[in-house]
Amino acid sequence: MKIIIVGGVAGGASCAARLRRLDEKAEILMVERGPYVSYANCGLPYHVGGSIEKESSLLVATEQTFRESFAMDCRTSCEAVGISTNDKTVQLKNHATGKVTTEKYDKLVLSPGAAPIRPPLPGIDLPGIFSVRTVPDARCIREWLDKGTAECVGMNSYTGCQTVTKPKQAVVVGGGFIGLEMVENLVHRGLEVTLIERLNQVMPPLDPEMARLVERYMVKHGVKLELNDGVAGFERAADGSLQVITASGKKHPADIVILAIGVKPETALAKMAGLELGQRGGIRVDEQMRTSNPDIFAVGDAVEVKDFVTGQWTLIPLAGPANRQGRIVADVICGRNSRYRGTQGTSICQIFDGTIAQTGASEKVLTQLGDKDFEKVYLYPNSHAGYYPGAKMLVIKFLFRKSNGRVLGAQVLGEDGVPKRIDSFAMAIQMGCTIYDLEESELCYAPPYGSAKDPVNFAGMVAANILRGDMPVCHWDSVDSGFLLDVRNPPELAVESVPGALNIPLPQLRARLGELPRDREILIICRSAQRAYYATRILLQNGFKAKNISGGMLSRSHLPNPV
Amino acid sequence: MKIIIVGGVAGGASCAARLRRLDEKAEILMVERGPYVSYANCGLPYHVGGSIEKESSLLVATEQTFRESFAMDCRTSCEAVGISTNDKTVQLKNHATGKVTTEKYDKLVLSPGAAPIRPPLPGIDLPGIFSVRTVPDARCIREWLDKGTAECVGMNSYTGCQTVTKPKQAVVVGGGFIGLEMVENLVHRGLEVTLIERLNQVMPPLDPEMARLVERYMVKHGVKLELNDGVAGFERAADGSLQVITASGKKHPADIVILAIGVKPETALAKMAGLELGQRGGIRVDEQMRTSNPDIFAVGDAVEVKDFVTGQWTLIPLAGPANRQGRIVADVICGRNSRYRGTQGTSICQIFDGTIAQTGASEKVLTQLGDKDFEKVYLYPNSHAGYYPGAKMLVIKFLFRKSNGRVLGAQVLGEDGVPKRIDSFAMAIQMGCTIYDLEESELCYAPPYGSAKDPVNFAGMVAANILRGDMPVCHWDSVDSGFLLDVRNPPELAVESVPGALNIPLPQLRARLGELPRDREILIICRSAQRAYYATRILLQNGFKAKNISGGMLSRSHLPNPV
Repeated sequence: MKIIIVGGVAGGASCAARLRRLDEKAEILMVERGPYVSYANCGLPYHVGGSIEKESSLLVATEQTFRESFAMDCRTSCEAVGISTNDKTVQLKNHATGKVTTEKYDKLVLSPGAAPIRPPLPGIDLPGIFSVRTVPDARCIREWLDKGTAECVGMNSYTGCQTVTKPKQAVVVGGGFIGLEMVENLVHRGLEVTLIERLNQVMPPLDPEMARLVERYMVKHGVKLELNDGVAGFERAADGSLQVITASGKKHPADIVILAIGVKPETALAKMAGLELGQRGGIRVDEQMRTSNPDIFAVGDAVEVKDFVTGQWTLIPLAGPANRQGRIVADVICGRNSRYRGTQGTSICQIFDGTIAQTGASEKVLTQLGDKDFEKVYLYPNSHAGYYPGAKMLVIKFLFRKSNGRVLGAQVLGEDGVPKRIDSFAMAIQMGCTIYDLEESELCYAPPYGSAKDPVNFAGMVAANILRGDMPVCHWDSVDSGFLLDVRNPPELAVESVPGALNIPLPQLRARLGELPRDREILIICRSAQRAYYATRILLQNGFKAKNISGGMLSRSHLPNPV
Repeated sequence: MKIIIVGGVAGGASCAARLRRLDEKAEILMVERGPYVSYANCGLPYHVGGSIEKESSLLVATEQTFRESFAMDCRTSCEAVGISTNDKTVQLKNHATGKVTTEKYDKLVLSPGAAPIRPPLPGIDLPGIFSVRTVPDARCIREWLDKGTAECVGMNSYTGCQTVTKPKQAVVVGGGFIGLEMVENLVHRGLEVTLIERLNQVMPPLDPEMARLVERYMVKHGVKLELNDGVAGFERAADGSLQVITASGKKHPADIVILAIGVKPETALAKMAGLELGQRGGIRVDEQMRTSNPDIFAVGDAVEVKDFVTGQWTLIPLAGPANRQGRIVADVICGRNSRYRGTQGTSICQIFDGTIAQTGASEKVLTQLGDKDFEKVYLYPNSHAGYYPGAKMLVIKFLFRKSNGRVLGAQVLGEDGVPKRIDSFAMAIQMGCTIYDLEESELCYAPPYGSAKDPVNFAGMVAANILRGDMPVCHWDSVDSGFLLDVRNPPELAVESVPGALNIPLPQLRARLGELPRDREILIICRSAQRAYYATRILLQNGFKAKNISGGMLSRSHLPNPV
């Protein structure tokens, strides 16, 4: 059996290695259009930023490794330029010689990845405008940053080499993962960075009120942020410097521009082979990663996958799923019954000292789908015991099914302890956990690492309080009609208070119930919603209609313009 | 309804607070024998060490908080000295006045905790010998460390106050959680520390070969370690200094001694009330934390709980379970159907820059129970992408059911990323995950936080390779009869090699199969068992009998005396 794998990074390389392990006799050919296989593309921004100093660190396994240890044919700078499904052949172009050869396959695996989007804007090919996809891309950016000029290498984007002054100002276009990582790394290198984003938020997987905190954090770290403004074009000013022109007409000077608008699945070969594509433009595969042609499989950023929580088709260009899909294809080709369970969209991003992570469904996605059977809570627990040094506040948005308590999604921000919590939530979602399970989860605790009630337990407990009817909640976007009661202590109100709210500190509440209306819904405020929970219990048991405002004053700070 | 809660820390305090939230009308009395309620006893070692500077930081909630916010009666320095179950009363002694009063209860909750074990050894009451249980204990230790003398406060252990020189040498007796935390904190304060442990390992929840790495780590950090040697007594030498005498007859000079031999459940009251105790000496409760008397509940370190994995009764003196049990009792008293699911023993401990954590069953426990339906693997993955700075090697021992792949337990050591992994394993065990689920878990990945295949995935993959028959394994303790094949490269062997092993580097293996015996089991060695896995696949598919030695040279380093 001969298997040809097109694309030698994450999904393709995983598939090749596992194929060999499962079948010593299989004839395997892996081709990669670029100069390197199995390189760490997730590390590229950090190589640009300098925390990964050596380019060679990014080269996880070489062509030679694949040839020697996996006894397979592996060719770099070799591009698949055609497929004939009738005679089961692939046309391969050797970029060194220009020669095109034809290879037969029994099974074909497509792992072409996704290409950075480069809209045909005026000036987009000016020197100094880069995408970040490959090792040569990173090399060009580093050279440009070091010298203000660069050799054109590989398939990078810019077409001319031109001496400019050493870059001081950078514009990053696009506020997704790559954009944010590039922002951090360029700041790390000492550049002034402007981030331009067409949408009203950075980090699209986050809900906007959570993204807002990320945006403020970036601004606090000196990043200039331009939301709600797409890029209209680029031009070279009279002094030779580059300018980024936005839809609103603003001009942002830039010594270097990073395009990180997003990626689109590489589907040229799939189209050539007549494979079915999905509505989102990725290659359609079944749960065994088989395309509409039974002898062709596809994996990684080029395919559409089912969202594990919502069941919707989605594009998730992440390394973890790509690697697992590669393994699954190898299994299936070797006659095993492996299947891909779908993608939860678990992801994480470092930004300065902070970490942004999410897993499962967001409110945005659920709302788009018309799903109303969910509730959300905001939590602000310490990353570890507050009395142990270094505890930082976590911001958690937690979503769960109203009807059955199923955990749907979590978004976690903070400067400490984020990965621990997002992975607990991710595992919970995978295993169909309910909030009642999270209440009882036995997670590790010692003062440097957590609390006796971990933030994950805490999320379960708060959610369970809601679903059991112990604590009705509401949110800041729906407080207009209620009677506002603030149970904080007067010194706290002096710092920030909500106009129109009656203040009764919690310890006085039982004695002052007479001051509260019995005919209105009382919406209760404190700092983080904990004391308000106690107050809610007191009021409910005394016959009042009461709701806790989830997240208290802390969640109020997510509002676009808190009064 | 009147509820009396005996013991105002973790379990008792949680119970009291939730009782009030669930029932505004309940009459609640919480009594605490010591001077503080709801204090952070997990923080005591760090207060001694100085990283938690202020004693007041440890006082999470005060008597006043309970009185004012929870509208309940709360009395410190008030000890329950008798119970009459016939007339449902408790005798309470006020330590300030010496007066004993009698209070009626409808429901009684016992949360007395566990007392540090103080064997009646010669000299045990000499000044300078301390236990670490309460805030006054920590205060005494700090005073002694600061001045070489101390006032006698509260219920601490030593009986005389005597001026000695400022302590330089410390002996910690007992290598469990508290012992290790005290070792770290005393070293942090600049003392020379000797740790004496009667058993052949520190950290009893770990398997001995994992504990060995902790022991080496401690020695590397300057700790003097004496295993297999119990304390026989204490004496004051001619120069006035304290000496710790061990069973083997050694004498260890000490300016201060910390006793951390373990704790035993406080069951005096339970005995007085005629409550059933378990075989391990804890109070017997059902899954609603009800004792043998239906109106008396018990929680926390004083009770025996069911081990979630093995189903055995066990004593787990940890804060997380105590807190959850307190909540559950409140629920049950208020007529709710909450139940405690048992304890996984998830725990974590910081030791210098390292972290030790475990969850679920250990090999030791399974073996004691005669359980043979399990397999183990050792893994040494990076804490995050190896190409990103700061990656540290994790050491993972992972246990799973042979018959069905159920995850049974994990032990994780390392200097980075331990809590994230142990919590994923903990959640997996809670939800009945199999190794096949772990293969597919979608955990967070970006270079600073993990790898595309997270160590937790990796554990699932390696285990699944074994259960699917793709990779038979063996362990270093059973390699005697096999033919040893080392597939590392010669420079690696120059550093360390296994006598008698044939070396064929992996890339040459396919060409040199003729050198291997067809009639013997071939046991394959590499550094971490990854290349040996590839080699195992090659040999199996070529008709050889082959096994991978789990963990390779790295797990060999756990052996007591690697050749």
